[in-house]
Amino acid sequence: MRRTKVACLGNKGAYTHSAAELMFAGAELATYAHVKNVVMAVENGEVDYGVIPFENIYNGKVIGTLDSLVSLTRQSSIVRELATPIVHCFGALKDHGQITQVMSKDQALEQCEAYLSENYPQAEQVAVANTVLAVERIVKEQLKNAGAIASKKGLEGLEILAEDICPNNLTRFFALGKQPTKLTGDDKTFISFHPYVTDEAGVLYNCLSPLKLFNINMADIFSRPDKNPEKRSYHFFVEINGHKEDKLVKRALEDLKLYLDPQGKYPDAVRIYGSYPNTHWDEIKKT
Amino acid sequence: MRRTKVACLGNKGAYTHSAAELMFAGAELATYAHVKNVVMAVENGEVDYGVIPFENIYNGKVIGTLDSLVSLTRQSSIVRELATPIVHCFGALKDHGQITQVMSKDQALEQCEAYLSENYPQAEQVAVANTVLAVERIVKEQLKNAGAIASKKGLEGLEILAEDICPNNLTRFFALGKQPTKLTGDDKTFISFHPYVTDEAGVLYNCLSPLKLFNINMADIFSRPDKNPEKRSYHFFVEINGHKEDKLVKRALEDLKLYLDPQGKYPDAVRIYGSYPNTHWDEIKKT
Repeated sequence: MRRTKVACLGNKGAYTHSAAELMFAGAELATYAHVKNVVMAVENGEVDYGVIPFENIYNGKVIGTLDSLVSLTRQSSIVRELATPIVHCFGALKDHGQITQVMSKDQALEQCEAYLSENYPQAEQVAVANTVLAVERIVKEQLKNAGAIASKKGLEGLEILAEDICPNNLTRFFALGKQPTKLTGDDKTFISFHPYVTDEAGVLYNCLSPLKLFNINMADIFSRPDKNPEKRSYHFFVEINGHKEDKLVKRALEDLKLYLDPQGKYPDAVRIYGSYPNTHWDEIKKT
Repeated sequence: MRRTKVACLGNKGAYTHSAAELMFAGAELATYAHVKNVVMAVENGEVDYGVIPFENIYNGKVIGTLDSLVSLTRQSSIVRELATPIVHCFGALKDHGQITQVMSKDQALEQCEAYLSENYPQAEQVAVANTVLAVERIVKEQLKNAGAIASKKGLEGLEILAEDICPNNLTRFFALGKQPTKLTGDDKTFISFHPYVTDEAGVLYNCLSPLKLFNINMADIFSRPDKNPEKRSYHFFVEINGHKEDKLVKRALEDLKLYLDPQGKYPDAVRIYGSYPNTHWDEIKKT
């Protein structure tokens, strides 16, 4: 039997790579530099699945992922979700002096803001392309006054001065695929809708009305302005509980579509990006 | 008369600094390294106003700003908004060779993704702390195979190879202050609410019901998971049309508060971050 092929973002050791290993044990992993390349690999059939980061509890949604879902997915859809803890640690050379500089990826620096301002309020924060690069530079250039933020594994070669410096940090990943998922009885569906009349008060309220009617819970909602200046309006993204093949979910989304686009003129009035088993990731830390 | 003092993020030449100059012409500007320092300078009375970036049309909301608004504002509130075009350009040394590396701030690289993948698909993208640093490094180290993304002004010393490489790019800024704003007849109000019972279907729908009742339009909505693992629930942020002192807006927000917190036990059930004149920033490019 052919081994499952999975595309993912970044190099071995990066968080998305680890998530892909957890989601598809034993699969052959191929790494790509950008989210859109991962999506295209699935679309083109080069791989069976693609794993991409969707949101971090500190940094919010990954805009590149969102944009790729909107603009690139045609035959592929979200088939799984997984949230994994992100455990950042702080390290420096064994014979380090006073820390005057902290290096890491932009997002990691942001996530560890509380720790840094408490422990190294005077240190300059230097953003580099990825956490691995920060460690490499400190070792190679023997920067005795620099510290790096990375995973424990990523800090190899440095002395670990503090562990888990950004508590309760989680990143949620999606897996894309072409095989439709089956109803499990506890699923979620990610959709977007685009009201072509936006300035009217109550449009969003009306859009949510079919969901309310059929008692469908929303796990998440957010809006994004349209980048096209010709139609500076908003897209709404909603994650609902239930599978798109569930009778009530199906009906509610049909109603929404009919409300927003009664003439059937706008294919993107309502879009469905996939249904996947609910991992209850936002309750992970509770248990 | 004492000159108005305004705190803002970043150095002279940075986009927030320019926004502060536009919002408070003739004011004395003080720069700070982090959004939270700007907010605290307003809170502590060191300055009259503070200018912070709120969202970029490509990158989405600035999470650090959102977190600072939530956790640090007590006496200060949002008093103005301003969206300014972000015009990224691409430059390299006059005697540059083939471009194999593109340097800029993480967010600028993200924003210019379409341009880069069309024109320099093979070039390595290197994230540095700010756009100015990228230019400095290219000049100082005479990197003939590197290009930088920055504002036209920021590319001084390099040859400009392309202008406005990320079209229709806008960043919206907020000004914080302690003086309450007056009703202008065309205002917006930024609020958040936190349903303490979230898993119930229809909670958000119910929350929007008072807005619908009084015909109050929503300009924006998004949710953020609570970082506290004890209460893994969602906060909703909504920008509405109207001033918080407007009779109907006031009533709708009181109704919302009464629905979410009938016993008056949760001060953060509904929070108002300020009312400010509507600049219709999302229509800027239309005109």
